Amino acid sequence: MGENQAIGKQSIAYSSPVLIKGSGSIVGQNEGSGPLGQYFDKVGTDKNDMFGADSWEKAESALQQQAVAITLEKTGLTAKDVRYLFAGDLLGQSIASSFGVLDYQIPFFGLFGACSTCGESLCLGSMAVAAGYADTVLCLTSSHFASAQKEFRFPLEYGGQRPLYASWTVTGSAGFILQPSSLSNKAKAAKDNYKRKIGITGITPGKIVDYGIKDSFNMGCAMAPAAADVIQTNLSDFGRTPKDYDAIITGDLGKIGKEALFALLDEQNIDIADRYYDCGLLMYDTQKQDVHAGGSGCGCAATVLSAYLLKKIESGEWNRILFLPTGALLNKTSFNEGQNVPGIAHGVVIEGITE
Amino acid sequence: MGENQAIGKQSIAYSSPVLIKGSGSIVGQNEGSGPLGQYFDKVGTDKNDMFGADSWEKAESALQQQAVAITLEKTGLTAKDVRYLFAGDLLGQSIASSFGVLDYQIPFFGLFGACSTCGESLCLGSMAVAAGYADTVLCLTSSHFASAQKEFRFPLEYGGQRPLYASWTVTGSAGFILQPSSLSNKAKAAKDNYKRKIGITGITPGKIVDYGIKDSFNMGCAMAPAAADVIQTNLSDFGRTPKDYDAIITGDLGKIGKEALFALLDEQNIDIADRYYDCGLLMYDTQKQDVHAGGSGCGCAATVLSAYLLKKIESGEWNRILFLPTGALLNKTSFNEGQNVPGIAHGVVIEGITE
Repeated sequence: MGENQAIGKQSIAYSSPVLIKGSGSIVGQNEGSGPLGQYFDKVGTDKNDMFGADSWEKAESALQQQAVAITLEKTGLTAKDVRYLFAGDLLGQSIASSFGVLDYQIPFFGLFGACSTCGESLCLGSMAVAAGYADTVLCLTSSHFASAQKEFRFPLEYGGQRPLYASWTVTGSAGFILQPSSLSNKAKAAKDNYKRKIGITGITPGKIVDYGIKDSFNMGCAMAPAAADVIQTNLSDFGRTPKDYDAIITGDLGKIGKEALFALLDEQNIDIADRYYDCGLLMYDTQKQDVHAGGSGCGCAATVLSAYLLKKIESGEWNRILFLPTGALLNKTSFNEGQNVPGIAHGVVIEGITE
Repeated sequence: MGENQAIGKQSIAYSSPVLIKGSGSIVGQNEGSGPLGQYFDKVGTDKNDMFGADSWEKAESALQQQAVAITLEKTGLTAKDVRYLFAGDLLGQSIASSFGVLDYQIPFFGLFGACSTCGESLCLGSMAVAAGYADTVLCLTSSHFASAQKEFRFPLEYGGQRPLYASWTVTGSAGFILQPSSLSNKAKAAKDNYKRKIGITGITPGKIVDYGIKDSFNMGCAMAPAAADVIQTNLSDFGRTPKDYDAIITGDLGKIGKEALFALLDEQNIDIADRYYDCGLLMYDTQKQDVHAGGSGCGCAATVLSAYLLKKIESGEWNRILFLPTGALLNKTSFNEGQNVPGIAHGVVIEGITE
């Protein structure tokens, strides 16, 4: 076995894949009615996606709590088997995570990368596993439409009109159990959720990129430059072309962000159009569901990866993908004070392992 | 050279120390007038600690930007020499960090652990360096009294009365440059800021601990249980007693939290009284300065470590310390909706290296 390697400008290549042993997802009503509805482990049944809670923020914590429960159950683990938890969400001071995971008592790294947090958690989680710091880590993210609207724009009761280029924050949460290819003797092996081994073989953590977007509804355009930067850097650091990936999948650029991404990559003569997907566009039927530009939020990339993308790798339809959750860095104060909305993206290379 | 080891319940012991090559700090007027005033690299000169900005939030970003500039200058590095940045702050969606570090264009991991974030960044930064993922990382945190009051309680103009057990959020930011004991050929060695090598030899990341505190002013009591938990776990994981540390230093428990910590440790027959310090109590003269229970905030532990604690190790007065930034996990919504204020702490073992 070789050594993990820092390669190129900002990537890491693991000597052995960090296995995604299993994953669990839970979503709300709107997501359950979309094209991926059948794939999620659990779809909320109450009308307002409250998940048994009495506030939107607590509902998002409930989502995280249930995503952990589903993930542990599917992998046959208990919270005690998990050495570190890497989690985050969109709410101020990450309270959905703090209160959602509290009861599990797992040593906790709180993360914030806006909607890119799923990528950040998979980067840091796989770094910890590949280095031998932990046999089992859990990566977890969530978002909730109603808590996000209140947090970033207006509470739903206000009845604000949303422009057609706005995206729809996904109500959902997903967890991922990571373990090394070779487990230490004392660790409990997670039950494999996939017929084929699936692992993270490398990562490209991203920089903050600011193209001067000031409209907090236009998150697709705010995040596209960061996604373009990470795609370009990933290809260069790993010495690959787009053809080395069966799919390149952003988190939540939506319809408008997709166009901006293609335009930016075109300037670099990079063409990914025949293998490009966006979790925000996979999540909803944008013709029939009233979600405008597509889905967004920490929970968007996470639940789509969990419920859909990993199954495409399991089936062998894809062998290697570049998964790129994208985030827009703002809060209501920065927006109201006229600051830009910079973006960030973190790239995760996920492969089906042929043994 | 042996391997890095996951030890005990939740700690990691590094096979070779991760060196803290240098550090830079900047603080506000109140901190500059305190007992540690002479030790900081820079003290703001404008009356309201605006650091040239036109809002409190932007002032905090300016603090981070200047802390990076000072840290790079003292270590003789440029931003291009830094492979990864681990940063966070107290503001919603970590905007002080996003906008503070944007111009440096360093691949960025955004963190949130409330006032424990300095510990979280040193944990994750040292994990990355010890694993060989990066030759140079920068760990950075900040807080600002005025932006924190507005974020968590009331804007200063409201003139709210603060109870005597409340702490005073430190206006300050500090950065730390970490490099491995053996640098790869292509990396630039940071200029040593200390006459003696100083390194991180192990870490104990903490769990979220909730003792049911509901008063967001009483952060000392909210955080003390998490600190007690990490101290106990660190001693047990490393097979040490308090006497194996020359000092055990919490981030910002203040006067009240200190009493709570001692009471909790007493139940476990752990006595640290003769080697205990709290950055919040070191920062201000609580008799003369009107700060009530002591200092707090992400910037408190960071600037005190940078300006004061590392110098005690450099001088040989201390050889090994357990540094424990402490955080209270809440936001104004969770507080207003009546949720508890759980705490978290992350332990970092820092040693003077005898060669």
